[in-house]
Amino acid sequence: MPKSQPPRALLSAAQVNALMDRAYPQLNAAARCYFILDVFDGGCRARLDADDRHLRPGGTVSGPSLFTLADIGGYGCALSHAGGDALAVTTNLDINFMRKAGPGPVDAQCRILKLGRSLMVFSCEIFSPAGELAAFATGTYSIPPRQAAK
Amino acid sequence: MPKSQPPRALLSAAQVNALMDRAYPQLNAAARCYFILDVFDGGCRARLDADDRHLRPGGTVSGPSLFTLADIGGYGCALSHAGGDALAVTTNLDINFMRKAGPGPVDAQCRILKLGRSLMVFSCEIFSPAGELAAFATGTYSIPPRQAAK
Amino acid sequence: MPKSQPPRALLSAAQVNALMDRAYPQLNAAARCYFILDVFDGGCRARLDADDRHLRPGGTVSGPSLFTLADIGGYGCALSHAGGDALAVTTNLDINFMRKAGPGPVDAQCRILKLGRSLMVFSCEIFSPAGELAAFATGTYSIPPRQAAK
Amino acid sequence: MPKSQPPRALLSAAQVNALMDRAYPQLNAAARCYFILDVFDGGCRARLDADDRHLRPGGTVSGPSLFTLADIGGYGCALSHAGGDALAVTTNLDINFMRKAGPGPVDAQCRILKLGRSLMVFSCEIFSPAGELAAFATGTYSIPPRQAAK
Repeated sequence: MPKSQPPRALLSAAQVNALMDRAYPQLNAAARCYFILDVFDGGCRARLDADDRHLRPGGTVSGPSLFTLADIGGYGCALSHAGGDALAVTTNLDINFMRKAGPGPVDAQCRILKLGRSLMVFSCEIFSPAGELAAFATGTYSIPPRQAAK
Repeated sequence: MPKSQPPRALLSAAQVNALMDRAYPQLNAAARCYFILDVFDGGCRARLDADDRHLRPGGTVSGPSLFTLADIGGYGCALSHAGGDALAVTTNLDINFMRKAGPGPVDAQCRILKLGRSLMVFSCEIFSPAGELAAFATGTYSIPPRQAAK
Repeated sequence: MPKSQPPRALLSAAQVNALMDRAYPQLNAAARCYFILDVFDGGCRARLDADDRHLRPGGTVSGPSLFTLADIGGYGCALSHAGGDALAVTTNLDINFMRKAGPGPVDAQCRILKLGRSLMVFSCEIFSPAGELAAFATGTYSIPPRQAAK
Repeated sequence: MPKSQPPRALLSAAQVNALMDRAYPQLNAAARCYFILDVFDGGCRARLDADDRHLRPGGTVSGPSLFTLADIGGYGCALSHAGGDALAVTTNLDINFMRKAGPGPVDAQCRILKLGRSLMVFSCEIFSPAGELAAFATGTYSIPPRQAAK
């Protein structure tokens, strides 16, 4: 049914990870745990290598850690598809937590629902290390207007 | 990546439409415009036949009409997969409006993200008559506990 | 704790209702049931006079009717505080349904959380005719850039 | 307009902080930065003492840090008003980011919108150290059924 072409990816996962490391060094200050696995036209895949620091009562990955992964996935979509401006900011994020995720690789499949001039809307399916749908998020990034060479 | 099986559909689209007509006659009182097109394991497809009554400034289908379609899509998922109890109620719905939808058939592709004992979480992709992604919703239905035969 | 001044109201409730009637005649086509009661600096109060047409199974005001009220409340905020441009559109709305609302006057207390150049964020508390908190919504309106005199 | 009485607080801020330290030691593992300032009938106030670790590009407190504060505020509401069961879990959280928050004390004013038998709905207003509304969140906690003495 969907007719429209997905927006084109302009940067690779490695380029996005390098940009994020420079712009947001606090994210992985303690250890490299959040990163972009893959970038494709219309979205990206982000991973959290969840260890003990990300767990909450009951031994499952905490809500804030899954939120961070969804937010990083959206940031990866914005950086890779809207020209690499590190100043894109989240304006809204809605997340449903559905199943427990234990420690291990937690993957977010992120899809750009709309890439407008100033807003990008995206969704994220987050899968537990056991391959179950752990959380689902939708969010909006505000994308700053393109600047002249600086 | 997703491992889990989708929940089984227990009712057909015709059965769900009949249930909705009985339980919620106000929905299509003026004319039959909201209905379930199809039910399948793990979700359903709902349609709004949008006419002049559903338009807002600019000649596009109004936000409330698209919200209603998403809500009906979730209701269709709950009725068809959780035993046909008409008393399921929406507890939360989040919707992003992305592209204009003109008059004509507006379709919602609805997917059950989780069917628990008391809550069902679902998502809806809503497509304009031109086949573009017009809106995206996620929501939660509260499902009443099964009652003994009555 | 909040330091910032609320944005100034530029139009009265009567002016907003007149604008809405012109721009969105479908809203109250069958009967006058949705309208703005009051406008004040930083927000407005909207009312749904709920009758049988707005009820769903169980005799309570339907989710779509409460969503419509929240959306109209946000529209009232945008029209009254951002210069009366009828082309403002909802980009996101999140609503929690909490308690049943029976037929009668359902009031929404709407507050502008942020009025930016291109986006307005608002919240709505929706009270049942019995005075209980029936629903709570937050949403975003996209506000078109000011146009030269037309 | 609101008629209903707020739910009663059963625990103090100190009791809630002690519970959170035991149940969720990862939260403040590096330094004590998230905690409950105050508990009152119908809600609580939570604080993030934001330092360099919580900042993102542009020198402002990151979205995930504000999300964590909102989530902790909701957890504080659930622990203090629903009997101190540490196993309450977030099922949904929606957050709007509106203004930048610099480093310093970031406070969340959290209010219980509904305390049901199995779900608690809450809202959080988050204020920057400069006293401006930085973010607004609404969320739902699932509250496990009361257990016999253990």
